[in-house]
Amino acid sequence: MALIVHKYGGTSMGSTERIRNVAKRVAKWSRAGHQMVVVPSAMSGETNRLLGLAKELAPEKHSAQALRELDMIAATGEQVSVGLLALALQTEGLDAVSYAGWQVPVRTDSAYTKARIEAIEDVRVRADLQAGRVVIITGFQGIDELGHITTLGRGGSDTSAVAVAAAMKADECLIYTDVDGVYTTDPRIVPEARRLQTISFEEMLEMASLGSKVLQIRSVEFAGKYHVPLRVLSSFTPWDIDIGEEAVSGTLITFEEDEKMEQALVSGIAFTRDEAKITVVGVPDKPGIAYQILGAVADANIDVDVIVQNVSHGGRTDFSFTVSRNDYPRALELLQSKVGPAAGAAEVTGDPRICKVSIIGIGMRSHVGVAAKMFRTLSEEAINIQMVTTSEIKTSVVIDEKYMELAVRALHKAFELEYTPAA
Amino acid sequence: MALIVHKYGGTSMGSTERIRNVAKRVAKWSRAGHQMVVVPSAMSGETNRLLGLAKELAPEKHSAQALRELDMIAATGEQVSVGLLALALQTEGLDAVSYAGWQVPVRTDSAYTKARIEAIEDVRVRADLQAGRVVIITGFQGIDELGHITTLGRGGSDTSAVAVAAAMKADECLIYTDVDGVYTTDPRIVPEARRLQTISFEEMLEMASLGSKVLQIRSVEFAGKYHVPLRVLSSFTPWDIDIGEEAVSGTLITFEEDEKMEQALVSGIAFTRDEAKITVVGVPDKPGIAYQILGAVADANIDVDVIVQNVSHGGRTDFSFTVSRNDYPRALELLQSKVGPAAGAAEVTGDPRICKVSIIGIGMRSHVGVAAKMFRTLSEEAINIQMVTTSEIKTSVVIDEKYMELAVRALHKAFELEYTPAA
Repeated sequence: MALIVHKYGGTSMGSTERIRNVAKRVAKWSRAGHQMVVVPSAMSGETNRLLGLAKELAPEKHSAQALRELDMIAATGEQVSVGLLALALQTEGLDAVSYAGWQVPVRTDSAYTKARIEAIEDVRVRADLQAGRVVIITGFQGIDELGHITTLGRGGSDTSAVAVAAAMKADECLIYTDVDGVYTTDPRIVPEARRLQTISFEEMLEMASLGSKVLQIRSVEFAGKYHVPLRVLSSFTPWDIDIGEEAVSGTLITFEEDEKMEQALVSGIAFTRDEAKITVVGVPDKPGIAYQILGAVADANIDVDVIVQNVSHGGRTDFSFTVSRNDYPRALELLQSKVGPAAGAAEVTGDPRICKVSIIGIGMRSHVGVAAKMFRTLSEEAINIQMVTTSEIKTSVVIDEKYMELAVRALHKAFELEYTPAA
Repeated sequence: MALIVHKYGGTSMGSTERIRNVAKRVAKWSRAGHQMVVVPSAMSGETNRLLGLAKELAPEKHSAQALRELDMIAATGEQVSVGLLALALQTEGLDAVSYAGWQVPVRTDSAYTKARIEAIEDVRVRADLQAGRVVIITGFQGIDELGHITTLGRGGSDTSAVAVAAAMKADECLIYTDVDGVYTTDPRIVPEARRLQTISFEEMLEMASLGSKVLQIRSVEFAGKYHVPLRVLSSFTPWDIDIGEEAVSGTLITFEEDEKMEQALVSGIAFTRDEAKITVVGVPDKPGIAYQILGAVADANIDVDVIVQNVSHGGRTDFSFTVSRNDYPRALELLQSKVGPAAGAAEVTGDPRICKVSIIGIGMRSHVGVAAKMFRTLSEEAINIQMVTTSEIKTSVVIDEKYMELAVRALHKAFELEYTPAA
């Protein structure tokens, strides 16, 4: 008998018919002898509907007080879901009980709309499990020390599920979603993309942060911190699939680099076209110049992703960075009108039509030449590289967005990602 | 400076536009120097939507466990409302904070879907009021001693508002609804129906329990028990109506029979066509027969309203009662197939096409002839009276439902309810 946490996304909970299927799947696991904790998201569309109502009444920038009320409102979506799922499980003949985050309690800080989980008390849930109940807990939310409801921000239900699994030392946390696992890249772009049976925690972290939308990044961080065995799998397989088969489906996120692990140089390719590039041309290459530029950008509440500064010529250098495409007009205006002139820049240029493509793999740690192979592949396709950044297990390039699909396909082929690597 | 509780019904909260108007009205009262607590209902239609989803997943008779989950689900409607109203008030420039029942806390028993309030702790709310905040509290719900969410049943938001007003010793509780007060009878049936400026608590109780839908009966009981000054008034007057004018509008429910009170014999006429009549004909007139019949009906969970047993002839008597029209087929079947034969009845007959019309007035206590005048009026209209029951301040008759409007109009005229009585 194992302690298993299931997490179901909004699409999986999107109608009463689908909730019934979730209940049948959970019932199957419960009847197989497992202790079950389930963390469902709000029904798809519900959180947007609720926040839409809120926006009609408070269209302006939100005070801390207003953010607290947004959480009060948004948290109800998951509360409805847990109650409905409990009813569906009871109709299946199981003993089931639902809890809102504050009832568990899931304790968080007071950063409304983007709170962080601080602790989960498991006494109540454990008592229910021992009494033979399936326990259903709202994702996405908790309670702060003042007794106010908090939410964890978009995708927070993944984090809730992993945090519950960590607090309860669950044997595995299964994240049911609308894809059947983590792929080497997006199959809509590369039809040969292959599902990974396993991926290391660190690779998953890079995949998540680089635009692969399978798992919310904070849930991966949480899983890594507490070594929660995490599996991403599809909620659209038939609910009565053989439980042994289901238990090894999807993609397992692993923490030990054991012998059996796939040892590919590159595990996957991530990409995003949500960014834009800004270059501050010909600034004096002196200490403090990076802070002078990026400090002003940060003060304007604009997040910066890739930052590149190359060696200088004649005491002057070019300083480039990317920002979210939404922030681009505001950032460019700020740089051109104020920050650039103040920093003594010759010019400030920008380009919103860029994309970022990254190759990710633990194998890059121990193998040289991976980045070189990436650059050669792009060169063979005559794709110009505008910016490069690297970390221990990934290399990212910024290129013209019109080459994005071409670059992803060429790299997928060059690194032979369509083939399962030899063990 | 007074402490005022406002309660707004689902229609008043039915859209963001209407919520904005509620906020403007509350802001007006707050700016006039009053400490404000607001108890809004769920947006109209929301509770039905939520319970409809629940019914799709759990169509059968509900266990206590299932009822707990229904409360978990239904309580979210009001939670959304309080958050939205807090945002609207903040947008109006006021300091406002919302609380769900469990946050106040509003303590109830564990009778899920029809819980009763046991206590309201006002420390938190009072601290907010003293800090200059408008406090918004979910209607309809609380928390039991196990930490589960409970709801008070339909119309429970009225009760919540009155209970909050009682706990906080509010100067007045204003119930904003879609009518502008309590009328002598339904103006849709009698165009001359007159709004009552005041009505006694006991009369209001009879009006509420006899089918006048202005106020939920439990809220009136609560107001009576704790002597909460209660005013029913319209939320559809312009929000910027002069506050002095608004403060005396609607109908005030009073507890003292003071000199200035209207001293009509009859204050109003209530009616309902939601009932059906069953007669158990020719049962032996012996001790225990009433219990034998009604005990079986109660065991089948069927509520009985009017009960009439007349004197017997030849040791046999007829025993009549009314049930909700929804329960009628089930009740008739039970009586005809089991209870009637077991009780030795000659026959069991029924009629779902009846209605109940009642005249209500504190004046009936001290004045004879009021019932006689009612019977004479109906007789003059050739309306046959099938059953009669009386209490200290009301007389009810059961008649053929096709005469309902005629009876109500004739009685309204006979008791001169269109005229304001002399003080």
